[in-house]
Amino acid sequence: MAQKIKLSTIAEALGVSTATVSLALRDSPLVAETTRERVKAYAREIGYIYNRRAASLRTSRSGIVGVVVHDIMNPFFAEILKSIESELDRSKQTFILSNHYDSVEKQRDFIETLLQLGADGVIMSPAIGTPAEDIKLAERNAMPAVLIARSVDGVSTPSFRGDDSFGTGLATDHLIELGHKRIAHIGGTDQTSTGRDRYAGYRQAMDRAGLKVREDWRISGPRTKLAGFEAAEAFLNLPDRPTAAVCWNDLVAIGLMNGLIRSGYSIGEDFSVTGYDDLQEAAIATPALTTVWNGQREVGRMAAKTLVARINEHPTVTGLQLISPELHVRKSTAAPKPDR
Amino acid sequence: MAQKIKLSTIAEALGVSTATVSLALRDSPLVAETTRERVKAYAREIGYIYNRRAASLRTSRSGIVGVVVHDIMNPFFAEILKSIESELDRSKQTFILSNHYDSVEKQRDFIETLLQLGADGVIMSPAIGTPAEDIKLAERNAMPAVLIARSVDGVSTPSFRGDDSFGTGLATDHLIELGHKRIAHIGGTDQTSTGRDRYAGYRQAMDRAGLKVREDWRISGPRTKLAGFEAAEAFLNLPDRPTAAVCWNDLVAIGLMNGLIRSGYSIGEDFSVTGYDDLQEAAIATPALTTVWNGQREVGRMAAKTLVARINEHPTVTGLQLISPELHVRKSTAAPKPDR
Repeated sequence: MAQKIKLSTIAEALGVSTATVSLALRDSPLVAETTRERVKAYAREIGYIYNRRAASLRTSRSGIVGVVVHDIMNPFFAEILKSIESELDRSKQTFILSNHYDSVEKQRDFIETLLQLGADGVIMSPAIGTPAEDIKLAERNAMPAVLIARSVDGVSTPSFRGDDSFGTGLATDHLIELGHKRIAHIGGTDQTSTGRDRYAGYRQAMDRAGLKVREDWRISGPRTKLAGFEAAEAFLNLPDRPTAAVCWNDLVAIGLMNGLIRSGYSIGEDFSVTGYDDLQEAAIATPALTTVWNGQREVGRMAAKTLVARINEHPTVTGLQLISPELHVRKSTAAPKPDR
Repeated sequence: MAQKIKLSTIAEALGVSTATVSLALRDSPLVAETTRERVKAYAREIGYIYNRRAASLRTSRSGIVGVVVHDIMNPFFAEILKSIESELDRSKQTFILSNHYDSVEKQRDFIETLLQLGADGVIMSPAIGTPAEDIKLAERNAMPAVLIARSVDGVSTPSFRGDDSFGTGLATDHLIELGHKRIAHIGGTDQTSTGRDRYAGYRQAMDRAGLKVREDWRISGPRTKLAGFEAAEAFLNLPDRPTAAVCWNDLVAIGLMNGLIRSGYSIGEDFSVTGYDDLQEAAIATPALTTVWNGQREVGRMAAKTLVARINEHPTVTGLQLISPELHVRKSTAAPKPDR
């Protein structure tokens, strides 16, 4: 675990007493204003955040763990959160949650709030564009972090996520084995590691099978059920209309299926569709969705276990830990109709 | 807003100085152990919670608002939370979230955590069986509360929710106007005010139309998509099989529709189904779901606005504020087939 920045570090650097530093950080009038400003400026510079809770209660932990994800409306996160929660419950940690909606700023606000609250640790699905610095800010202030769902370059923080390129490879291979040759890829974005990896897995599977990867068979963007629903029309208008779609996630796949059904097509007969995540509702959808199990419960459980171990200063893994996905075949995929 | 319990209240009652009380609550060795225990016991007795943040920073607010609901996995709450969040963003409040899964104990832990953190206020969807005392605990410690989705007897705390009995009345009236006479009610529980109110609205509409309310046409319990899906079999086995189902919420309705479609039935033709909430996916479902718009965005917005007003000690409404629901007719309802 990173060494916590101590008051004495600041005191030594500025040639003042630790008591002065402590009072200055609390804005005490007992310290001259110029000194206060000098201390606060230096503290900011080296990334020190004044921990009120710790100041009043040096001996104990706060029992609070922060969790920040891009959007809790996504059932993928809800499933991860559920397993994080039951794991944290076991070690009597209270869990507080925030959304960053892929705003690095919002995420930083939350980390700073957690530091001020003296939270014991943080589990993050980092916002698009998160600099390594923001993760280090937490760690340097003795608040260990664990990443889920996405990685950040330049940090060795334990990160848990599914092996995305392998996963879309499984879905694409399955469609190819059924006899599909014209396969579209729908949803996701190149701005995230997940987006790049999932698309790469699809490309590689197509390449391996000697099938053409066409940029114009990619509809990037959609990540929700509504966006998948709206993408049905674009899919139907693709050049040399594909017979199958590898979707970014289950939400996009379910939305797309509903859109295609509304246009009078039958899924499994006219088109094959695969999802990703194996959400609870994938099995309930009509037709039941062929999808890739993404280990979200495992991701949550392992992330929480690792964070608790780090809080207790036990040794843990570092860096990226990939969970191996599995293909769950249901009714939304079948052999293509004979070529028209 | 309730008067905050002051250190001086405790000091006067025990005949010690406020400084002694303050030190005792911080477990300072400067106070004799017997005195410390006496102070802490009395403080607990009168419901005082030591606010570390406030102690170190009397003049400013923490900028933190707590939100606790039974289950953020429910998209109904996710939609409420989204509008709470955008409202709080506007007044620069950070928002931390917790689930209580209808455990009064978990909810109380969260309230106590919020008090210790010096949170400015709390928005709660109270757990089943929440005693008025638990809401008063927050208010007595100068942390104003606002309730959403459910009410609690014995408090005048502002509460925002839809008019549930009126809403299910709208759905039931609609089915009756289409010509249905045998209408089932599926999902929900009598343990919550929402459950009782929604069932009451259905009963009253049946009564008004002179139709028979049969206890054996009620399948209580289901609240999720999976439970709705599994209820399809029970629905098909109801005595004198009903031709329509008024469902507790959209999730149950969408699950039920999928279950019935899997059994070879056509929704809108063989059976009519109504939902409740008008979630984003109600319009995307196939067939598009006839449902009752429940004003969740409005609930979230008004709750957050009211909480911010209370934090700023501006006058606000008190007690229950009902939002009037609206029927959104889509494709899942139609006239029944001629009686077989």
